[in-house]
Amino acid sequence: MDLKKDMEFLVEIDNMKNIFRRTKNLSNQNFENDAEHSYHVSMMAMILSKYCDEEIDENKVIKMLLVHDIIEIYAGDTFAYDEKGYEDKYEREQKAADKIFGLLSEDNRDYFRNLYEEFENIDTAESRFANLIDRMEPMLLNYLNNGGTWAEHNIEKEKILNRLDEVKNSSKKLYDFIKNFIEIYFSKER
Amino acid sequence: MDLKKDMEFLVEIDNMKNIFRRTKNLSNQNFENDAEHSYHVSMMAMILSKYCDEEIDENKVIKMLLVHDIIEIYAGDTFAYDEKGYEDKYEREQKAADKIFGLLSEDNRDYFRNLYEEFENIDTAESRFANLIDRMEPMLLNYLNNGGTWAEHNIEKEKILNRLDEVKNSSKKLYDFIKNFIEIYFSKER
Repeated sequence: MDLKKDMEFLVEIDNMKNIFRRTKNLSNQNFENDAEHSYHVSMMAMILSKYCDEEIDENKVIKMLLVHDIIEIYAGDTFAYDEKGYEDKYEREQKAADKIFGLLSEDNRDYFRNLYEEFENIDTAESRFANLIDRMEPMLLNYLNNGGTWAEHNIEKEKILNRLDEVKNSSKKLYDFIKNFIEIYFSKER
Repeated sequence: MDLKKDMEFLVEIDNMKNIFRRTKNLSNQNFENDAEHSYHVSMMAMILSKYCDEEIDENKVIKMLLVHDIIEIYAGDTFAYDEKGYEDKYEREQKAADKIFGLLSEDNRDYFRNLYEEFENIDTAESRFANLIDRMEPMLLNYLNNGGTWAEHNIEKEKILNRLDEVKNSSKKLYDFIKNFIEIYFSKER
């Protein structure tokens, strides 16, 4: 156990409060930062896990969502619809993961690195649900912000629905709920 | 199951991003908001649970810390050293708890209300550890911000240490760590 190292990691993640995403908060129209986003998706996972169609360890999903974006402290946020940004995303984020998880004490390091990798690989029931929640949250904010980044960046409906394809089987109820919002938004004259 | 109600709750808690505390973030010197604070303490609980001296369900502590401040959406933040604010704190927060947890679907409502009440009552191992973390976090920020609210509001060392008394037996290692910071700060000429 090395408390000093674990505390250094916990001081470093204060930077999550200063990494800004493209979506805006509903409450104050500020760009949402990574700490706020991670908080919001963790709450969503906790409240919505009962709607998951696969058997999941809900606690693992919450932990996964708490850590899923901390690599952005060094790799920055990549906008979901930025194709260029996705070209070197994997490499940038692996380097960032080495650095940020490397700050932790040895007995914490592998556990949290593995949680992050599981989230990225989307090949377990927990990571499918976590990714569904992670993708739903900005959609909810965009819908309630009159289209938000969809409107601003002129994103097509198909591209938004494509973001859900990989994870939609995790929860039919949640997928139908958010798909309905997307359909309503795009059916309106704009 | 009532997804519409659960989603209304999840939209309402976006307001956590717009409730500001007295402490400032390290990364950008903005006043920390409740979503950022809840994120930071949940991460601390996850990383630091192994230093707890009592047997705890770590997952319960994380959930408790994710929900512990949502009553502030209606009750506002009460500064830790504001004696006047504490006079009607209990009543204000109970009313707020009725309102915010009342938004949830019936099968979620009692579970999360009880988690909140357990946090407030500080009479279980999980709530002692959660409260220790909740009190440590602003202390860490203050220490690293050259005294922060301690300096600004001229808070005496004894008052800060008193905040830890009730929960210090939860983790000798963490208590000693933060006490040491407080001692260092107050031993410096200011």
